[in-house]
Amino acid sequence: MKFSVTVTLKKDVLDPQGKVVQNTLKNLGMDNLKSIRQGKYFEIELDDSDQKKAEKKIDEMCKKLLANLIIEDYKIKKI
Amino acid sequence: MKFSVTVTLKKDVLDPQGKVVQNTLKNLGMDNLKSIRQGKYFEIELDDSDQKKAEKKIDEMCKKLLANLIIEDYKIKKI
Repeated sequence: MKFSVTVTLKKDVLDPQGKVVQNTLKNLGMDNLKSIRQGKYFEIELDDSDQKKAEKKIDEMCKKLLANLIIEDYKIKKI
Repeated sequence: MKFSVTVTLKKDVLDPQGKVVQNTLKNLGMDNLKSIRQGKYFEIELDDSDQKKAEKKIDEMCKKLLANLIIEDYKIKKI
């Protein structure tokens, strides 16, 4: 069972890395760019057959390691 | 118009960062973990109203800056 997890900074948290990418893209001539924010992406494969259990495990992984809940949000999707 | 871009390492490319995350999760007691691979995630907002044009621009951004096509794949999605 395969899941994707995206971890993004919360709205009010500054994203200096994204800002640098944004400025670089503007210097490359992309003028219609409004905003860009960077996050992390994980593809996780589990050996579980029960989707609910698997999702719970992924959720636990996010809370324990993958995301910093103080400044980050995460989304889990089955793929 | 808002798009998400995920950039992942190609299948045959080693992912040491993902490996470290995998080992750490195993040490935390997650036993059913089969594999985990890490990538990058971008949320890009454009001022364009034409979706096709916007998608072309995002594609150009990926090719020019966001992804290294030799070792990485990317996916663009409207959100």
